[in-house]
Amino acid sequence: MRHVQFAEDGRLRHLITLDGVSRQELEALIETALALRQTALRPVNKLPTLRGRTVVNLFFEPSTRTRTSFELAAVRLSADVVNFDVAHSSTKKGETLIDTLRTLEAMRCDLFVVRHKENGTPALLAEHAQPGVAIVNGGDGNHAHPTQGLLDMLTIRRHKGEDFSKLSVAVIGDILHSRVARSDIQALKTLGVQDLRLAAPAELLAPELRAFGQVFDRIDHAIAGADVIMMLRLQKERMDQALIASDADYFRQWGLSQERLALAKPDAIVMHPGPMNREVEIASSVADGPQSVILEQVGNGVPMRMAVMSRLLAG
Amino acid sequence: MRHVQFAEDGRLRHLITLDGVSRQELEALIETALALRQTALRPVNKLPTLRGRTVVNLFFEPSTRTRTSFELAAVRLSADVVNFDVAHSSTKKGETLIDTLRTLEAMRCDLFVVRHKENGTPALLAEHAQPGVAIVNGGDGNHAHPTQGLLDMLTIRRHKGEDFSKLSVAVIGDILHSRVARSDIQALKTLGVQDLRLAAPAELLAPELRAFGQVFDRIDHAIAGADVIMMLRLQKERMDQALIASDADYFRQWGLSQERLALAKPDAIVMHPGPMNREVEIASSVADGPQSVILEQVGNGVPMRMAVMSRLLAG
Amino acid sequence: MRHVQFAEDGRLRHLITLDGVSRQELEALIETALALRQTALRPVNKLPTLRGRTVVNLFFEPSTRTRTSFELAAVRLSADVVNFDVAHSSTKKGETLIDTLRTLEAMRCDLFVVRHKENGTPALLAEHAQPGVAIVNGGDGNHAHPTQGLLDMLTIRRHKGEDFSKLSVAVIGDILHSRVARSDIQALKTLGVQDLRLAAPAELLAPELRAFGQVFDRIDHAIAGADVIMMLRLQKERMDQALIASDADYFRQWGLSQERLALAKPDAIVMHPGPMNREVEIASSVADGPQSVILEQVGNGVPMRMAVMSRLLAG
Repeated sequence: MRHVQFAEDGRLRHLITLDGVSRQELEALIETALALRQTALRPVNKLPTLRGRTVVNLFFEPSTRTRTSFELAAVRLSADVVNFDVAHSSTKKGETLIDTLRTLEAMRCDLFVVRHKENGTPALLAEHAQPGVAIVNGGDGNHAHPTQGLLDMLTIRRHKGEDFSKLSVAVIGDILHSRVARSDIQALKTLGVQDLRLAAPAELLAPELRAFGQVFDRIDHAIAGADVIMMLRLQKERMDQALIASDADYFRQWGLSQERLALAKPDAIVMHPGPMNREVEIASSVADGPQSVILEQVGNGVPMRMAVMSRLLAG
Repeated sequence: MRHVQFAEDGRLRHLITLDGVSRQELEALIETALALRQTALRPVNKLPTLRGRTVVNLFFEPSTRTRTSFELAAVRLSADVVNFDVAHSSTKKGETLIDTLRTLEAMRCDLFVVRHKENGTPALLAEHAQPGVAIVNGGDGNHAHPTQGLLDMLTIRRHKGEDFSKLSVAVIGDILHSRVARSDIQALKTLGVQDLRLAAPAELLAPELRAFGQVFDRIDHAIAGADVIMMLRLQKERMDQALIASDADYFRQWGLSQERLALAKPDAIVMHPGPMNREVEIASSVADGPQSVILEQVGNGVPMRMAVMSRLLAG
Repeated sequence: MRHVQFAEDGRLRHLITLDGVSRQELEALIETALALRQTALRPVNKLPTLRGRTVVNLFFEPSTRTRTSFELAAVRLSADVVNFDVAHSSTKKGETLIDTLRTLEAMRCDLFVVRHKENGTPALLAEHAQPGVAIVNGGDGNHAHPTQGLLDMLTIRRHKGEDFSKLSVAVIGDILHSRVARSDIQALKTLGVQDLRLAAPAELLAPELRAFGQVFDRIDHAIAGADVIMMLRLQKERMDQALIASDADYFRQWGLSQERLALAKPDAIVMHPGPMNREVEIASSVADGPQSVILEQVGNGVPMRMAVMSRLLAG
């Protein structure tokens, strides 16, 4: 799947996964987003970058923050946005996904943000997209969520500087079901993180990710001395009920409490992709505390998505 | 709840209820809306007032006219509008209302129009809103619908002039379930109406409103000599079935027919917040007749909401 | 119904059906759309034609391509667009369709695109529309889909030139349930097509259309020597199950295969209004083959709808 997103000259044509995206490309996106941050988060005139271009939000899975973040990113670049309401779509009449893409391409839509519960749907669309049309993965199954990975890197970059190689980063929780974890881990490795720690209940650890970091079976050990703590959402909606005894039990064993946070470096930052299950994977006092950068992550999503859209549609 | 909407210097920061809003403030909003009316209702270039600002329609209750009215008001002030589809929202994943607010604030959304079936939701969000972010109540339970109250005042102002003190105003029908009635009554009292008449079936009269006007148990008595007749929607969807015997029965006892309208002053105006139950609380011949200002009310909603948004986001 | 769409001076005020629209008018719309095509399908600055105007998509039936096509047409003419989500509308509270129209008119909405499963709904709204307000039929029951008819004419015009009189055109498939077939047939006759062929299973042939062309009970005979082949979607959702034995059976008898296409003129074009049932009414190899203009039809929808909106709102 990873090769579908690159043009023959190596340029990024789509954004489907961070797997295989070069360090140079990641850094360029982060720098672009940093520069756009001012514009994105201030009430000023819009940038004319995508004037006359059309962005389609093709969300086959419900979302608030992600759809709105992409919508605002597009609007603040002066693009026109069409929200494709899937419940109302012709897919009900049996039109295939590819025909839907072809149809919207024929109306001269330029960029499609695709969220789907099945792994591989954005890659499938990217394979079939016409020249000049870009597909951005807005999250597919537990495969990838590359713009979340990128905005997380932007957030770390703002707090910890350009050099990721010295950072200790702990990724904690329901790694198995998390597309965010996969995209974060790929980006962290590409940006040079050596000390990458993965901590999850045994039944929620994705076996294929073991190769990327040091695996811990206790949260305390993973947190000790960390610079960055990335908590994951417990995705109860995707799991067999029996995996987790109770919310209270999960919090006791795997939740980020203030006591546990004290084990990390004093200037460690706490991240979460949202939406949070408060008092399940994270204590409210931590989520709302001084080391939390969770709302900044949300804010960074807008300029990062502006950077991605600009890059894919430029030229 | 009423104090959450004012800044320390007394300035209006949110609009949650008309309870406690000063006469000066009401009059300023009405005058602003009068001035905007021309622009709002003519196909001209938009006003640049809210260029670069983002308005979110956060509707937890279905609505046509109100959402569209706010959307058009925002668009005609050059704001960007995001419609937050609650059925598709992360609230399904268990995110709290406050986290939803925080998330959208972090993306630099400036004003939230909130409609919710539970009393107090807009006030709750206003309590938690960041500085510079405004909450507008788009209707909560049977508590308040302040922009409807304001647009009703604008409509009366256009027909009856600036001095409300001499007007006889009758509010008639399902007062118990009506957030519109509450906001109208508060505004009418603040603007100096002395002769305020409330008429409702005993079981649909809100006891706490008795203090605001003279209570009638027959519609004919309430209408006699009135300048303004504000009919209310019979909110069958909010009531125990048994309260009303039948539509025909209700119309016979409480409906505004042409015969009854003849009891009012010859130049009395007939108002209704919509959507109407024709031949239940109001005869079609009255609703569509020469004394009806019902469609003008709808039209006045756009400039009044423009006035409110301008006022809350200005500076 | 056909007269509701014309003003007293003969000018087109609404677009409800192509029945009765003059050849001169059809040709003017086609020429306007041809001129707009460049603009509509290129990422350039928008046309200012409808700046300050408001277009409402009033879709009571689900749709993807049609709603999006109208939305993009409006946006590319600089109009503001409101999508009226019917599931969330006040029609649930019992407001009549006419009251909904009145309400949106009062907010100064200028043009309504109406799609409804019942024949005659757009005409009903056109009868009640205020002066200056235009209704465009976005498809009603099996009655009419005039903008689809127009974009099909634009597509034929681009491939076969201005003179329709020498063309052999075959309309094939589920004519009974097709509003597209009705609008196409009316436009083709008005534009001078002499050799119009209708081919359908006996139970899917609309009796009242027999007068417009030569009826065939075998697809091969209808295709032989044709310049234009218009395939129709098999509308299984609108038919008694028993009418069609199976998809495979239908394809065998009525599907457009490559073998059958070879019976037509070598430069014949293949059209389909979409969404397609692949391998039911049309083989994928034909739909995606060199004679197919199906995606061009979709693309032509945008400039044609721009032409219609411009014409109805101009002046």
